[in-house]
Amino acid sequence: MSFSLQDLNARIIERSSASPEQSYTAQLLSQGVQKCAQKLGEEAVEVVIASLAGNRQETIGEAADVLYHLLVLLRAGDISLDEVMDELERRTSQSGIAEKAAR
Amino acid sequence: MSFSLQDLNARIIERSSASPEQSYTAQLLSQGVQKCAQKLGEEAVEVVIASLAGNRQETIGEAADVLYHLLVLLRAGDISLDEVMDELERRTSQSGIAEKAAR
Amino acid sequence: MSFSLQDLNARIIERSSASPEQSYTAQLLSQGVQKCAQKLGEEAVEVVIASLAGNRQETIGEAADVLYHLLVLLRAGDISLDEVMDELERRTSQSGIAEKAAR
Amino acid sequence: MSFSLQDLNARIIERSSASPEQSYTAQLLSQGVQKCAQKLGEEAVEVVIASLAGNRQETIGEAADVLYHLLVLLRAGDISLDEVMDELERRTSQSGIAEKAAR
Repeated sequence: MSFSLQDLNARIIERSSASPEQSYTAQLLSQGVQKCAQKLGEEAVEVVIASLAGNRQETIGEAADVLYHLLVLLRAGDISLDEVMDELERRTSQSGIAEKAAR
Repeated sequence: MSFSLQDLNARIIERSSASPEQSYTAQLLSQGVQKCAQKLGEEAVEVVIASLAGNRQETIGEAADVLYHLLVLLRAGDISLDEVMDELERRTSQSGIAEKAAR
Repeated sequence: MSFSLQDLNARIIERSSASPEQSYTAQLLSQGVQKCAQKLGEEAVEVVIASLAGNRQETIGEAADVLYHLLVLLRAGDISLDEVMDELERRTSQSGIAEKAAR
Repeated sequence: MSFSLQDLNARIIERSSASPEQSYTAQLLSQGVQKCAQKLGEEAVEVVIASLAGNRQETIGEAADVLYHLLVLLRAGDISLDEVMDELERRTSQSGIAEKAAR
């Protein structure tokens, strides 16, 4: 069974109660939503750039950063990953262009 | 068993072979990496704004958009989600600040 | 005498008192800081993409959009362009790396 | 006569021929368009966040950063500020909603 976004999220929740000195995740969360949002924004810029540069390894690394920082931002806002996945499931049960139009 | 990022990705791969008229995903992919990267960047800005505004429902919706458009961008760059999850697993097997320092 | 950022700013201030039906600037401002910030973020993503794509004409157009939307965002936050230019002058009177280190 | 964007640009052009050890501007330019675009993207995220947080001083500082890094990015792409100002003048000679619709 391979590593999933839920596994990563479980790890983030676990780390969030560590001390900021021992965990980067705890450190980010201790700085609040604003800092977490800033990090997500920066990583998004970097995955945009890496993908346009056609740099495969860098795109993989930056995509990983986006996923990690998005989960941290959700945690900072006390939103569970399940709420986001439920929203995605709801949208996916609709289809194609129709789904987009419904947003 | 709840909806997972792998499920969403499977749906995106399935849709990517539809016609652009029938599928928003196929439409995006037909416009190339540049368009897919632009959409991801825009959605990242929107989740930053929604989270800072403390708007819970909007943050959930925009986080869903970020996940969806990140997967589409990976697909546009012919990168599999597994490659990104492997990278996250590798990082997570390390810990806390040490892990960040190693990046 | 060529068109300056101050000229553009004067035009934005002038338009800001028009009705939202008659002026795009007034329309943006009527939607508040959040909308103005979103537009700036989107235009920044687009100038990043255009410049990486090496698309000269598009980069010029998107850079123009960034300048315009930055001024609108300042106006939305009741910050004058002079305050920003004074900050830039202050920094520029210092030099090079030293200046960056001082930020 | 107050400090203008043209003054800042003249300073950036002057610095661009300095050694990367002596000038932050020269350092950025020596790293290429990709690095300059990344910095602009990051500063844009920061001005978005500062303005939403309603932090006046920080918004001024980040807006200054956006202007500086936009000019550096133009320089990296061998685009003159005049070309961008001409585009803005052209747009401004049109008006309001009509102008936006014409883009």
